[in-house]
Amino acid sequence: MKNQTKEISGELDDLGFSSKYISKTQRLVNRDGSFNVDRKGLSFSDSFNLYHWLISIHWFKFIVFVTVSFLFVNFVFATLYYINGIENLGIPENVKNINAYWEAFFFSTQTLTTVGYGRISPVSTAANVIAAIESLLGLLVFAIATGLLYGRFSKPFAKIIYSKYALIAPFRDMTGFMFRTANRHKSQIIEAEVQVVFSRLEDVNGAELRKFYNIKLEYSKINFFSSVWTVNHPINEYSPLYGMTEEDMHHSEGEFLILLKGFDDTFAQTVHSRFSYRHDEIIWGAKFRNIHITDNDGKVSVALDKISDYDKTDIYINN
Amino acid sequence: MKNQTKEISGELDDLGFSSKYISKTQRLVNRDGSFNVDRKGLSFSDSFNLYHWLISIHWFKFIVFVTVSFLFVNFVFATLYYINGIENLGIPENVKNINAYWEAFFFSTQTLTTVGYGRISPVSTAANVIAAIESLLGLLVFAIATGLLYGRFSKPFAKIIYSKYALIAPFRDMTGFMFRTANRHKSQIIEAEVQVVFSRLEDVNGAELRKFYNIKLEYSKINFFSSVWTVNHPINEYSPLYGMTEEDMHHSEGEFLILLKGFDDTFAQTVHSRFSYRHDEIIWGAKFRNIHITDNDGKVSVALDKISDYDKTDIYINN
Amino acid sequence: MKNQTKEISGELDDLGFSSKYISKTQRLVNRDGSFNVDRKGLSFSDSFNLYHWLISIHWFKFIVFVTVSFLFVNFVFATLYYINGIENLGIPENVKNINAYWEAFFFSTQTLTTVGYGRISPVSTAANVIAAIESLLGLLVFAIATGLLYGRFSKPFAKIIYSKYALIAPFRDMTGFMFRTANRHKSQIIEAEVQVVFSRLEDVNGAELRKFYNIKLEYSKINFFSSVWTVNHPINEYSPLYGMTEEDMHHSEGEFLILLKGFDDTFAQTVHSRFSYRHDEIIWGAKFRNIHITDNDGKVSVALDKISDYDKTDIYINN
Amino acid sequence: MKNQTKEISGELDDLGFSSKYISKTQRLVNRDGSFNVDRKGLSFSDSFNLYHWLISIHWFKFIVFVTVSFLFVNFVFATLYYINGIENLGIPENVKNINAYWEAFFFSTQTLTTVGYGRISPVSTAANVIAAIESLLGLLVFAIATGLLYGRFSKPFAKIIYSKYALIAPFRDMTGFMFRTANRHKSQIIEAEVQVVFSRLEDVNGAELRKFYNIKLEYSKINFFSSVWTVNHPINEYSPLYGMTEEDMHHSEGEFLILLKGFDDTFAQTVHSRFSYRHDEIIWGAKFRNIHITDNDGKVSVALDKISDYDKTDIYINN
Repeated sequence: MKNQTKEISGELDDLGFSSKYISKTQRLVNRDGSFNVDRKGLSFSDSFNLYHWLISIHWFKFIVFVTVSFLFVNFVFATLYYINGIENLGIPENVKNINAYWEAFFFSTQTLTTVGYGRISPVSTAANVIAAIESLLGLLVFAIATGLLYGRFSKPFAKIIYSKYALIAPFRDMTGFMFRTANRHKSQIIEAEVQVVFSRLEDVNGAELRKFYNIKLEYSKINFFSSVWTVNHPINEYSPLYGMTEEDMHHSEGEFLILLKGFDDTFAQTVHSRFSYRHDEIIWGAKFRNIHITDNDGKVSVALDKISDYDKTDIYINN
Repeated sequence: MKNQTKEISGELDDLGFSSKYISKTQRLVNRDGSFNVDRKGLSFSDSFNLYHWLISIHWFKFIVFVTVSFLFVNFVFATLYYINGIENLGIPENVKNINAYWEAFFFSTQTLTTVGYGRISPVSTAANVIAAIESLLGLLVFAIATGLLYGRFSKPFAKIIYSKYALIAPFRDMTGFMFRTANRHKSQIIEAEVQVVFSRLEDVNGAELRKFYNIKLEYSKINFFSSVWTVNHPINEYSPLYGMTEEDMHHSEGEFLILLKGFDDTFAQTVHSRFSYRHDEIIWGAKFRNIHITDNDGKVSVALDKISDYDKTDIYINN
Repeated sequence: MKNQTKEISGELDDLGFSSKYISKTQRLVNRDGSFNVDRKGLSFSDSFNLYHWLISIHWFKFIVFVTVSFLFVNFVFATLYYINGIENLGIPENVKNINAYWEAFFFSTQTLTTVGYGRISPVSTAANVIAAIESLLGLLVFAIATGLLYGRFSKPFAKIIYSKYALIAPFRDMTGFMFRTANRHKSQIIEAEVQVVFSRLEDVNGAELRKFYNIKLEYSKINFFSSVWTVNHPINEYSPLYGMTEEDMHHSEGEFLILLKGFDDTFAQTVHSRFSYRHDEIIWGAKFRNIHITDNDGKVSVALDKISDYDKTDIYINN
Repeated sequence: MKNQTKEISGELDDLGFSSKYISKTQRLVNRDGSFNVDRKGLSFSDSFNLYHWLISIHWFKFIVFVTVSFLFVNFVFATLYYINGIENLGIPENVKNINAYWEAFFFSTQTLTTVGYGRISPVSTAANVIAAIESLLGLLVFAIATGLLYGRFSKPFAKIIYSKYALIAPFRDMTGFMFRTANRHKSQIIEAEVQVVFSRLEDVNGAELRKFYNIKLEYSKINFFSSVWTVNHPINEYSPLYGMTEEDMHHSEGEFLILLKGFDDTFAQTVHSRFSYRHDEIIWGAKFRNIHITDNDGKVSVALDKISDYDKTDIYINN
């Protein structure tokens, strides 16, 4: 019997946030989809992963990192060539106006990038050995740099947008929790799935504990996510929202965590998106405005800039 | 009870096309599998993704884009070398018949592609700095260009073909909706799955609304998709097609949306295909002709050019 | 009731091989896992995919293809340089012993691979233009070549081996169909799943039709596929094998199609393997010999070369 | 009835370890997640895969392998150039202080890496042919080397940590088996799933056989694996642990095999982790200490270095 009930009403789930959070926390999931939890007690090398960092940082930082690394490696090799003797680079007579160290530096850049003009080129064994090492290193380092660059460029991600507010609105002959989501990309997402977890503080034997519920959606999966999807949770007697008032929601610091995934046809990969609605981002008694327009030729279009538009309406709270 | 029925007869599903479409629309899914819905109200940068665009455009456009970019970057650097002074490129005496600007331009191409013949090569500090930047940029830009090129070349896609028409035909001791599909590639698709959604206009409280039904197939999954697969939907009393006549189908602007996926052994990835049959692409009272041939050695072959062949037959509409 | 039975006894499935095969066919799935069905009626361009071909052909063919393409492109460009005038390549005095056309050819190879020694280098506008095009082309073509090379090298595949014969053997207090499979790689396969389809000719209204059954396994999934897995199908009253004798099996041209998949930890991808046992590759009345050895330290090892070893035993056919 | 029970209490599963292990074995899964089973009877080429090896070996070994290969190929080509005649490399007058063989060697490195300074460059047909082959080979070999390098660098893996001990602790109004796990990376894992298999020796008709059970978890899946997850198995009457004492556990050589997987947002791929708790790594009668801290701003953090901390407590064994 207990199983049956759980399946219908939404499973309690500790989500990895632990149910031992004390009350009055900040939001659990930031609006950009990242988790609002700090990890402590780990050494830098325990938690740091260079690839993770390089694939995730902002483009500007990435370009600075590449440039600085390029300069650094060239300064190291330029210094080696310089110490080894600039005369071993066979600089011809017509190149007179450049400082000897910079000659070595530019020779290094020509070797690392494998341009190898050859006007400057190693003429001693030692210089040749350094140059051979540098060109091998150059090929391998640029393998990683270019892999990262393309990896960043082609990284699959969903440009999913959500309505600014979630609504508590009349739904069929009862009340529902609903929000709207859309794919901003021109790509086509198929087999889209959404999961919603509701979290609130509850009084358990006198202590305020944070509890989590998987809430049941009218449709949690659609085969074709072509434009806008209105996700609905009917607030029936199995719902943890059943009987809650707006004040209850604020008082228990309710938050809805959204997880959306689907197969993106262009990236040929599954993409994920996360979002969250906090208790103060919910409108009680409102319905979304229709944003589908059909023109005279029967062509349908959808106004994505109006995805958050709603009209106030009456609701009643189930008791 | 309602749940039980829904599971058997096909779930109602809003599909992201919204059920609020007014009547007389164009087809929902184009025959190439793209969705026939426009997205409006987004700025260019909101909906545009460079990678998406570059991986999806036609090969001809892609080659033009690469060529134009290559020319553009070289003109920029050629201009820089030219402004900096053509004498700093150390052009030897035997190259006399080329215009100075073009010398700079060709030097730029040799640097960007890292060919670096060296007959022309930087002899001043400024020219060396520009050349070093260009060769670094060249490596990084070609990283993206070559990644894209290979990404386009190796992009997994299914070359799935469908019969031109879907048929309403006798099926076991009742009537069925059926179409044929085949894998045109030599690759082998395993664990193929097909999902069919039926959509039509319905009268709901006087308004014509578009409704969607997942319809139940005899087999929705086959382990080995070796050649031709005839997909069947038995029109029993749980089917939304039950009792519909050909006129009903046209009048309600029925459309069948097809989603097929499977694991392609050569690409080592899951491939997807979409298709749709509109009410005027359905033949009432017809059976597909057998296209399997077994030769004298017992070797089976299948004539894929005859995939749409059918013979007229009698059907009766269930009431 | 019908549904219940089907779930227990194995679903009938048309598998894409069509149930309309006439009798006395060759085997359905070759021992290397490819399907034994020809596709006809398609033009070459309909069924051919260059990437598919290049990623699948034998290494020897691939190397020949790359070499021939390399020679071909260089001959084309060598001819262009030659027609344009060999004097425009600025060949220095000390290179006298090479034929002019071959000079152009070697210059072309140096440009295409971006080695660009520079002893030969373009000194006219036209030669420079051709060289710029060739170096750009070289970068792009090698992008595809190297991508393919690495794609072939890193292509995930399972080195799954199967016992040479499947056995009909005593199993618990009844009879079972069983075969053994093992992972030959040092990699670790997790979440391995196996599906077995049984096919035979059946008399349907006087015509011999080929039928397919998904047969039910004792365990169709194991979390850790560490060494050897003995896959069992208990022949109970729901099994299509129930009551069949060895003669029935031969007469109905029975064949077992095997599909195995799992997540390979090293490739970080799902790998697939296919196999088939034909009626004449089944031993009636035999049990597999134990091939696990535990040494004195309690270390377990498995003798994979003995995977097909069996001992004859008595069985009785259920009626 | 039997099926019903199995579904609730955990399925018996042979895991590919075979149930025919004799008693007193070493642990089944090493703490690094690898399987403790040897494969024998295979030839080297049967079980060896070069890609597998190159992607899995330690970074130090990989760098040594690349360096040695680079030297080897260059020595081969240097010897060819040397045999062909060092005078065909057109070494200019100003390079006098290098041994002729080493000249050939350095020319080879410049060709293989496509640096191609050009001070040394082929001036005979034979030398040109060798150089053309070497530059083509260089491009192809570096394609694999750089692919491998980036493949190793970007290989998705989970940095999952586990509590040092698993605990048998009071859970709700009964007893539970529990352990703690956390994601050490800054990345975010979503849709994490854990599967636990319990294995022990059992007396079957007088022989001690190793048996495997999938044990049922309170929650086997969490949508957001943000920080720490305490995995619980309630020891109710359906559990194979029901009624077992600490002595039983030691005597039957119990071991818990853990399989965790989830989607890593940064790698955009599913990552896997394996672990195992042996009978002597289980604390009977202990509870995990809370490691969540909420600061004054309501910001939650978690002390991952304290993941194994526990307090002793009383338990009772169900009978």
